Amino acid sequence: MTLNACWHNGQPIQQLSPLERGLAYGDGVFTTMAVRQGRAALLAYHWQRLEHGCQRLAINTPNFSQWQDDFRRFLICYPEMTAKIIITRGEGGRGYLPDLLAQPNCYFYAFPVVSYPESYQQVISTDFLHGRLGVNPLLAGIKHLNRLEQVLLRQELAQTSYPEALVCDVTGKVIEGVFSNVFIVKNHQLLTPYVNEAGVAGVMRRYILQLAAELGIIAHEKNLMPADFLAADEVFFCNSLYGIWPVAQIAGTMLPSHSLTQKLQSQLEQRLSYV
Amino acid sequence: MTLNACWHNGQPIQQLSPLERGLAYGDGVFTTMAVRQGRAALLAYHWQRLEHGCQRLAINTPNFSQWQDDFRRFLICYPEMTAKIIITRGEGGRGYLPDLLAQPNCYFYAFPVVSYPESYQQVISTDFLHGRLGVNPLLAGIKHLNRLEQVLLRQELAQTSYPEALVCDVTGKVIEGVFSNVFIVKNHQLLTPYVNEAGVAGVMRRYILQLAAELGIIAHEKNLMPADFLAADEVFFCNSLYGIWPVAQIAGTMLPSHSLTQKLQSQLEQRLSYV
Repeated sequence: MTLNACWHNGQPIQQLSPLERGLAYGDGVFTTMAVRQGRAALLAYHWQRLEHGCQRLAINTPNFSQWQDDFRRFLICYPEMTAKIIITRGEGGRGYLPDLLAQPNCYFYAFPVVSYPESYQQVISTDFLHGRLGVNPLLAGIKHLNRLEQVLLRQELAQTSYPEALVCDVTGKVIEGVFSNVFIVKNHQLLTPYVNEAGVAGVMRRYILQLAAELGIIAHEKNLMPADFLAADEVFFCNSLYGIWPVAQIAGTMLPSHSLTQKLQSQLEQRLSYV
Repeated sequence: MTLNACWHNGQPIQQLSPLERGLAYGDGVFTTMAVRQGRAALLAYHWQRLEHGCQRLAINTPNFSQWQDDFRRFLICYPEMTAKIIITRGEGGRGYLPDLLAQPNCYFYAFPVVSYPESYQQVISTDFLHGRLGVNPLLAGIKHLNRLEQVLLRQELAQTSYPEALVCDVTGKVIEGVFSNVFIVKNHQLLTPYVNEAGVAGVMRRYILQLAAELGIIAHEKNLMPADFLAADEVFFCNSLYGIWPVAQIAGTMLPSHSLTQKLQSQLEQRLSYV
């Protein structure tokens, strides 16, 4: 993937320190977002998730508001992009133990706009992957830089014909997609897996839960098994880059409806201009 | 921690690429070893573990023998150091999906020699930490770059007076130390936890299992609970940098003996000159 620019703490850089703890241990968090006409959708949610992730990892971020100012300048310089923000604990320390004086690093990346086939916004087919997510309450929900599971699962997905697929944890519960969260509709209720033992608490997942509440749709987290997906009225994937992908069939089983999914899609289109 | 040198694929560097997948996803493996008088103890074991880790992560390493040649030069340049080798999948790719043409990167780091109090080689006290390791068969055993669990546990350890502590997984089994593997002796047998659901398969752990076989000591992997440690005849930690640390007491419970531990220590001293 081409990189259009990389900034470090507000300044353009070409390279970074070999002592970066983000490389040594994946010691940081990140987020990715769509930027159109200089506007990043759900930007406040992305910053909130970054800040919450840093808090859970005990990464001090005294410069948070400065980074937010810097990012406004970045949006002006690169108004059409897929933007990525990485915050790390900084450099050095004695092995795993962080240096208490280490200054956190904030990186901005400008990548070309990611485009997906428009037909994915209509319906996609999917299946369950064989690879399983671990169970790890200490780190679950955080969009941290320890993403080897997703790298391996993404390679399994590439062996299939599906644009996205469902992933279970080692206990057999469905948790998410490879790079998406997932919802089902059952009896007019919107249900999504918990992400407190495995998985990532996606920004779009949070937005959809709030949107449902605004629209008077009952929506909540629930433990969901593969059978719940096969017996669902509707299923959809979501993330910050593409919005919502309705699922037409899972492992050959046709799903009966997409009506609530389409309602949410049209609401997203009205409220977030890019999707 | 001061860095004396960093090499990338055989050449000294000052900085590295922002597109390094090691930063983006922790997409790689590493190992750390003691180097004295230009000799790295158990070097063949370290390379074997790096290669095995790359195989499990499907990282192609066509340049492996070149890297080994390069490292021989590195040892000549830096004969007294703590050496770290990092191998990553390389740069770029489309999100989590690797670029099939990506070339892996091999980094050598020369850090100052790590010194521990000599008294740790006599006996240490320890306890169980509260933080739990996740359960993740896909990644367990590999010394990969996804080390946020260890970063968090190392911070918990720093709040105690112990040089190392015991860590359980979410199911309650004892797995390892924060930066060590662990053994118990019970009825003249040497037992160490499995590392196929959580934990790292340490180089020193492997060496001690082989050494025990050579010495006619029965040694094997076993599921071990905290109660097994409190009722053990002997307990010790081990890793590549310090060798063996005998445990005198766990959570206030005195352990009755160190005789087999001391026998293993003296064998290590004879066979690996640095410990």
